[in-house]
Amino acid sequence: MINKIMNEKIKQAIKILKEKNIDLWLIFVQESSIMQDPTIEIVVGKNCTWQSAFLINRKGETTAIVGSLEVENFEGKGQFNKVIGYLKSIREPLVEYLNDNKPNMIAINYSRNSVIADGLPHGLYLNLLEHLKGTGYEKKLVSSEEIVSALKGRKSVTELSIMQEAVDKTLEIFDKVTCFIKPGITELEIADYIKSIVKEKGYGLAWEEDHCPAVFTGPDASGAHSGPTDKKVKKGHLVNIDFGIEYNGYCSDLQRTWYVLKDGETSAPEPVQQGFNVIRDAIQMVADKLKPGVLGCEMDDIARAYVIEQGYEEYPHGLGHQVGRKVHDGGGGLLPRWERYGNTPFMRVEENQVYTIEPRVTVEGYGVSTLEEEVVVRKGGAEFISKPQKKLMLI
Amino acid sequence: MINKIMNEKIKQAIKILKEKNIDLWLIFVQESSIMQDPTIEIVVGKNCTWQSAFLINRKGETTAIVGSLEVENFEGKGQFNKVIGYLKSIREPLVEYLNDNKPNMIAINYSRNSVIADGLPHGLYLNLLEHLKGTGYEKKLVSSEEIVSALKGRKSVTELSIMQEAVDKTLEIFDKVTCFIKPGITELEIADYIKSIVKEKGYGLAWEEDHCPAVFTGPDASGAHSGPTDKKVKKGHLVNIDFGIEYNGYCSDLQRTWYVLKDGETSAPEPVQQGFNVIRDAIQMVADKLKPGVLGCEMDDIARAYVIEQGYEEYPHGLGHQVGRKVHDGGGGLLPRWERYGNTPFMRVEENQVYTIEPRVTVEGYGVSTLEEEVVVRKGGAEFISKPQKKLMLI
Repeated sequence: MINKIMNEKIKQAIKILKEKNIDLWLIFVQESSIMQDPTIEIVVGKNCTWQSAFLINRKGETTAIVGSLEVENFEGKGQFNKVIGYLKSIREPLVEYLNDNKPNMIAINYSRNSVIADGLPHGLYLNLLEHLKGTGYEKKLVSSEEIVSALKGRKSVTELSIMQEAVDKTLEIFDKVTCFIKPGITELEIADYIKSIVKEKGYGLAWEEDHCPAVFTGPDASGAHSGPTDKKVKKGHLVNIDFGIEYNGYCSDLQRTWYVLKDGETSAPEPVQQGFNVIRDAIQMVADKLKPGVLGCEMDDIARAYVIEQGYEEYPHGLGHQVGRKVHDGGGGLLPRWERYGNTPFMRVEENQVYTIEPRVTVEGYGVSTLEEEVVVRKGGAEFISKPQKKLMLI
Repeated sequence: MINKIMNEKIKQAIKILKEKNIDLWLIFVQESSIMQDPTIEIVVGKNCTWQSAFLINRKGETTAIVGSLEVENFEGKGQFNKVIGYLKSIREPLVEYLNDNKPNMIAINYSRNSVIADGLPHGLYLNLLEHLKGTGYEKKLVSSEEIVSALKGRKSVTELSIMQEAVDKTLEIFDKVTCFIKPGITELEIADYIKSIVKEKGYGLAWEEDHCPAVFTGPDASGAHSGPTDKKVKKGHLVNIDFGIEYNGYCSDLQRTWYVLKDGETSAPEPVQQGFNVIRDAIQMVADKLKPGVLGCEMDDIARAYVIEQGYEEYPHGLGHQVGRKVHDGGGGLLPRWERYGNTPFMRVEENQVYTIEPRVTVEGYGVSTLEEEVVVRKGGAEFISKPQKKLMLI
């Protein structure tokens, strides 16, 4: 499965190089098990020890230059057609490769805008410059963020089918949780219950276990990036869960909201229902407009403006992000024009990307209303891969 | 346990700042779960999502600047006394911190020489420069490699006791393996046997499972960085295993060598015995000279010269590396003066560092003779933490 996907992704990479008119993509890494460049798992598939160059050119040739002790390792199992070993320094074989290929532009693995494309540590970058000093190639280095964004974003058929399964399995867990939530139970108990199902099923967690799942209940709830506490679920409170699994190497990321009825209540109070509806409708409004070619920030605008117009404070985070092998994946996101997001809000949405849509509002005195759905972008528009929560669940 | 170690390490860091006369150590990171700067696990203890600054100054103050949604998360469980949140950009609180502290020199998390100190991706480095543009601080940035090397290298009491246990438990597994090896069994079967014990005991593997353990037998064996194959153990062959566990967050890394007697043999043939003795004696010669203040490359010299003098080809790798949370840890190593090792061979050995010593020779027609021991450097010299293999084990 992994090799099948890797072959799909290498073919895709070559296509992207042609499309973007880039001669060569160089992934330069070292001791990649310590800090693994996120592209390693999609096109290389294993770690290296010494300085190594993984090269894909627009002619479709794949070449790995690795420490001599690792040549067999990469020849045996790697995806790279040609494996070159070196003993003392990578400079000579690397420069030789470049002289043979004479690329006009070399896209290397750093990015100011996208964390998943920023896999080249600064010190190693300086070493690469030193290797290339005087060859002229040091002036031809550009960021490979465009390649990585496209490659990570555009999901292959195999990737999409795994991601659909991951979402389905996450929703099955949410269904069980609905039966488990009751007044008196703590956030931590709910989180532990979810983790026990994840463990039993053999899935992984999509992010760190201290806040996956994030469970928050009632007013003054912690944010989505805080862990569950021993705060108890109470009647008249909202309960929210932000949770995802890792399944066959791919993540899901969803949020659901429940309201715990007070004695005598048969439906949620008006402000709670209103808070839920605003979120639900904001998501649908975005899904209706999301299609190849739009800018991420335009999508954030839609939901943010609607939430504010309905009288709520704007959410203190982006509307949505891509999902893939990492829970925060891909380059661009459905993000506001805030400096902390760099240029990622301004990237165009592409076909076969998977996004979350996750606005939220605070319902004064009750808690937080959140939903997070996942959609895949098709030629004609967005399709939900999570069955969207249309009604506030009542406990 | 983890928090205890983290507190020990933060205290150590402050001491190192004073010793090295550095005002401030800044760990600048983002989405650290994707590529985790190796210092995060030693002084921070949890990942962040948005651009974050973890600051330790020589006055002993610890400050974290993180995205506002994560403030609670770091206040609750982090090791940092002061946690500052920001919404749109880290620039303002970061510059304000610097203006309050007025450091003469800011050590940041990159290094040309040491992978574990090279945690700042190049793109993020450029963003940091942009934040500091015009403040004057952008000219005060230096590499924190000295701090990180010292901090990772100098093991605290708690760390050393865990590492001793990790080694002891690894040697227990090697003992079991001695009873398991027999002619006809494959490298892969031996590796699977070892993995089954590791799993049963609940340990982790010290490096990637496709070559941990690395098992190699007979002539034309693959190198230590290749995985085991379906090659069978035969009479008259050497068998070697390179293996380590991860135990309570710390790694072990050891190698052992066996010889499989031919029918009628009661001891190994002369060249095999000789190949073993050379390795064993080279290790002892190094251990006798290894003490605080020597250069790593001087230690490599001793073993390399001895191996060559005894008529063998020199080993195509370094003599030894530091071990810790990562199997290749610390800054300096016992390494030859090869370009691929940067300046790490020229770093001085310090008290309480843990090193492997692992020369190897090829014994023509029989296989490879390797041993890898672990030593801790004390004031008076090196002490083995692995019980050294003094005799060739016969099967």
